[in-house]
Amino acid sequence: MNVARAGGMYMASTPEDPRAAEGEPKSARSGGLSRWPRYEQATLGFREHWYPAARSFDLKRDPRGVKLLGEELVLVRDGGRVYTLEDRCAHRGIPLSAGRREFPCTVSCAYHGWTYSLESGELVAALTDGPDSAIVGRVRLRTYPAIERQGMVWVYIGDRPAPPIDDELPPDLLQSTYTGVRVRDFLGNWRIAMEGAVDPSHAFYLHRTALLSRTFDLPASRGRHWPEVEDGRYFTYRTEPPTPEAQYPGLGLWPRKRWWQRFRTLKGLSVRAFLPCASRVSGLVFTEPFVVFSWYVPIDASHYRWFQVLATQATGLRRLWAVAKYHLWLKLMYQREFLDQDATMNELAHPFYADGSGWSKERLFRPDSVIVAWRRFADERARGVQEAHGTVPAAQEAP
Amino acid sequence: MNVARAGGMYMASTPEDPRAAEGEPKSARSGGLSRWPRYEQATLGFREHWYPAARSFDLKRDPRGVKLLGEELVLVRDGGRVYTLEDRCAHRGIPLSAGRREFPCTVSCAYHGWTYSLESGELVAALTDGPDSAIVGRVRLRTYPAIERQGMVWVYIGDRPAPPIDDELPPDLLQSTYTGVRVRDFLGNWRIAMEGAVDPSHAFYLHRTALLSRTFDLPASRGRHWPEVEDGRYFTYRTEPPTPEAQYPGLGLWPRKRWWQRFRTLKGLSVRAFLPCASRVSGLVFTEPFVVFSWYVPIDASHYRWFQVLATQATGLRRLWAVAKYHLWLKLMYQREFLDQDATMNELAHPFYADGSGWSKERLFRPDSVIVAWRRFADERARGVQEAHGTVPAAQEAP
Amino acid sequence: MNVARAGGMYMASTPEDPRAAEGEPKSARSGGLSRWPRYEQATLGFREHWYPAARSFDLKRDPRGVKLLGEELVLVRDGGRVYTLEDRCAHRGIPLSAGRREFPCTVSCAYHGWTYSLESGELVAALTDGPDSAIVGRVRLRTYPAIERQGMVWVYIGDRPAPPIDDELPPDLLQSTYTGVRVRDFLGNWRIAMEGAVDPSHAFYLHRTALLSRTFDLPASRGRHWPEVEDGRYFTYRTEPPTPEAQYPGLGLWPRKRWWQRFRTLKGLSVRAFLPCASRVSGLVFTEPFVVFSWYVPIDASHYRWFQVLATQATGLRRLWAVAKYHLWLKLMYQREFLDQDATMNELAHPFYADGSGWSKERLFRPDSVIVAWRRFADERARGVQEAHGTVPAAQEAP
Ligand code: FES
Ligand code: FES
Ligand code: FES
Repeated sequence: MNVARAGGMYMASTPEDPRAAEGEPKSARSGGLSRWPRYEQATLGFREHWYPAARSFDLKRDPRGVKLLGEELVLVRDGGRVYTLEDRCAHRGIPLSAGRREFPCTVSCAYHGWTYSLESGELVAALTDGPDSAIVGRVRLRTYPAIERQGMVWVYIGDRPAPPIDDELPPDLLQSTYTGVRVRDFLGNWRIAMEGAVDPSHAFYLHRTALLSRTFDLPASRGRHWPEVEDGRYFTYRTEPPTPEAQYPGLGLWPRKRWWQRFRTLKGLSVRAFLPCASRVSGLVFTEPFVVFSWYVPIDASHYRWFQVLATQATGLRRLWAVAKYHLWLKLMYQREFLDQDATMNELAHPFYADGSGWSKERLFRPDSVIVAWRRFADERARGVQEAHGTVPAAQEAP
Repeated sequence: MNVARAGGMYMASTPEDPRAAEGEPKSARSGGLSRWPRYEQATLGFREHWYPAARSFDLKRDPRGVKLLGEELVLVRDGGRVYTLEDRCAHRGIPLSAGRREFPCTVSCAYHGWTYSLESGELVAALTDGPDSAIVGRVRLRTYPAIERQGMVWVYIGDRPAPPIDDELPPDLLQSTYTGVRVRDFLGNWRIAMEGAVDPSHAFYLHRTALLSRTFDLPASRGRHWPEVEDGRYFTYRTEPPTPEAQYPGLGLWPRKRWWQRFRTLKGLSVRAFLPCASRVSGLVFTEPFVVFSWYVPIDASHYRWFQVLATQATGLRRLWAVAKYHLWLKLMYQREFLDQDATMNELAHPFYADGSGWSKERLFRPDSVIVAWRRFADERARGVQEAHGTVPAAQEAP
Repeated sequence: MNVARAGGMYMASTPEDPRAAEGEPKSARSGGLSRWPRYEQATLGFREHWYPAARSFDLKRDPRGVKLLGEELVLVRDGGRVYTLEDRCAHRGIPLSAGRREFPCTVSCAYHGWTYSLESGELVAALTDGPDSAIVGRVRLRTYPAIERQGMVWVYIGDRPAPPIDDELPPDLLQSTYTGVRVRDFLGNWRIAMEGAVDPSHAFYLHRTALLSRTFDLPASRGRHWPEVEDGRYFTYRTEPPTPEAQYPGLGLWPRKRWWQRFRTLKGLSVRAFLPCASRVSGLVFTEPFVVFSWYVPIDASHYRWFQVLATQATGLRRLWAVAKYHLWLKLMYQREFLDQDATMNELAHPFYADGSGWSKERLFRPDSVIVAWRRFADERARGVQEAHGTVPAAQEAP
């Protein structure tokens, strides 16, 4: 798919769209119909994709429960590999994340010792019923493809065969020599968080008060934005050059800059988004030599787990310097102070969208053409939509 | 409306009502029909009235969010005035109470800098879209009439033109020279709290254990009560003289008083109630020279904000003495210990009424003729009933 | 009823049941129909039975509110007896557990002093309305039979005449010379807790990590179980001798015991269950000379109150020794560390059963024949099923 076609199909703010030229993208609903129906249904995220599930560092010997897209999973590290199963014993529903390790390549439920193969999910022993237990081999838990890359455990949520993870992750993440990863759960739906990542306008307003941006010359505004698709899978956009200051009718000049803000200009920011729920920001001068990846992983309808990954390809002394900068500076000033401003907005916007009313009541303006284009991009390209957890099948009778 | 007519219309315990003479007011439901249908619907309060929204003292430079009658509002102080808007940015739903002050007479949303006129609620700038933004002037937030009086911010919740606040507030509040205001949120519906304020019987039982009333000669009971309307808008009642002690058949003499309680008698208490949700108590000897006003403002169906206002018209040395008494004594012993006993009852009665069953299951007795009369008074005279928050309109397209 | 007949009727794992012989009891649903419909409905417990409501020790002079089977009760100690009433004043719904004691054999509501007879529940005075109050004698609260036995207050929840408590409690509890009672509320439905009590398999797995069982030779498994009925009212079971260790195909020998675990064997455990929600465990060597009773009393659909009663019939020096052992050892090591392992499982299994799906999705195995038999025992013999609290009648008009 080339850029032009992509633009023609779902990019709302191209000059061809007269309404966008007026500065106002079409709203989500038109005559009661959603313009991105799959996206609007994807409260719990998109199926048939790889997701980060935990930092490798946080997965030690004990099984670890995680909730992803409304599904309860257990991660188990064994013999250098990571396995993932549904986190509910088929017997009487106890989470296996409360379980024990009795034999290699198995996990045993804490209650009555039902013992499952990590590889196949099959019940290989029911310890309290003896070796002749008739239930063995007749029960199987769902397993999930899992793998480790760049300090994180990745899990595939879907029913079709998982594509190779290395085809799915961005090459510059795979090639990085160091990653500084912060993970935290926040209140809000993952889509609002994801839209904050592609949103081109809040950066010059919300983050004005962050210490990191206080010394920079932040522009008043940017004019138009042209969404594009790169490499057939990254959503991105070009922009007009920013307006440094402007005279607002009836209000006055804005912004009023301090003299020391005139020395450094923030520019060259490049934002990409990609499925299922990720963004990549480069050119953010104060994070260099790091590129910033984010995954906004759906936990349930009202919570997302934000994986903030600062990745560098620097080597030697430059790598050392990057590691020091990460620990002394970026962890606190960027991942915490700066990015938590975004998290606060996502939390504050949550009630508006949580009851469904936000999708029809929101009033979009010119910069939101990027958000509209992202929604259509995701709506069109996501492989599947996650349904409410009622659809997660119970433990299977082994064939 | 004169007293006689009021009595005839909704006062249940006048001698003409034979059932009331037997001591038992009619229950709320008669053949499944409510006798005060609008009052019973007014879970979220009455519309088209002025309400206290905050203490002036608590509204500083920053916008302040408050919930009133289920509606989210933001209060903003600017140039000596207070403005009130709906607390939700039309763009993507962020509360304006999280916002900033960029220009006089405006408030700017924290996320993308949409800037609203405090006076009209109109969008006057979209800072991140530049001065030529096409959305400006096409969006307007709802505004609410707001004004300050006697150390409090008052807001009019309604759709009709707001009547002058000075015609609505009691003259002796408006003329007071000092007010001691305590504000706290409590669990329970506002109506139960309000009924506690007019309830003539609990004072001589519930508050017996409050330190403030321990030294007083509290009577056993009062006989009949005659509800009345004063000045065409205050609900009040007259009572029979109290019975100091009484012999209860099969139980004995009650109350058993200590010798020191014989010296001081509590009498002359006068209680008024007025719409939308207020009471005035005078003649409470231990609060003098203060008159006690209370507003039981609905926050949502299960919470009310109690404005406890001790108002005095004393001047000079007497005023000084009143201020000292308030801070040294009444704040702790009356507003906290004494009035919190009422709040506890309102919280304990909440489950009974919250599911609707209390309105039909309650068993009223003779003193409740006052409560019954208050319900009918409010039912008949309240200007409007607040519906659930679904009816609060979204941001308007400016005409 | 003799054992044989009981076995024939509802014991799923007798040799006659070919499926049970294969090790797998029939699941709860067969063609959509429950095999123990009353048991499955009994989310709030069984009616027409006696329940422990509090430790005698915890019921002092003040009224005490307890929730049992979804009903709110108040316990009042007066003149050496305990009385139980519904915990809601008929007037305006305030709990009587917030009330006061004004006269012997009565309790008075904190709000307006309505005073009820503890014996009959009848309103005997309305203190704030004087001795001539017309409401007196016209209102009556529901009362519940209550009695003290062995350091606990017992209450009968039902509508039929209560059978004598001494016919209902196990003789060896009634004859005990000392009881060590721990009471705690836990998350989970009472039935899952009760099933944990009769469950013959978890003891040899879950409790392996408890300090108390670390020095014991715990077997790998037991084979078959034969449920029985004793004395016409106790549900119990016989078992095959345990397998000390076993070779599990593809996995290896299990359990791997420490040398010092070879010296002491846990055997001779005898478990009984009885209605409405109780178990009795004897032969647990480390609790001797105590027999362990448990009541898993339904509080609401998601909480149970576990009465853990260690009862001994020892006298003289042996009794002294038992008391010391209880306080120095069993309170902490057994009631707390050991039994809290069960409570944790009940909590972890709760989501699986709470939405109703567990009853049809659970996959039972050979040892669960005991649980299946218990369910059928309870389903068949429980006197009544508690409905949701909407059915608890409101205060009655006295006849
Ligand atoms: S619940 Fe897992 S083994 Fe029984
Ligand atoms: S949400 Fe208020 S400006 Fe965007
Ligand atoms: S609520 Fe109990 S006496 Fe009024």
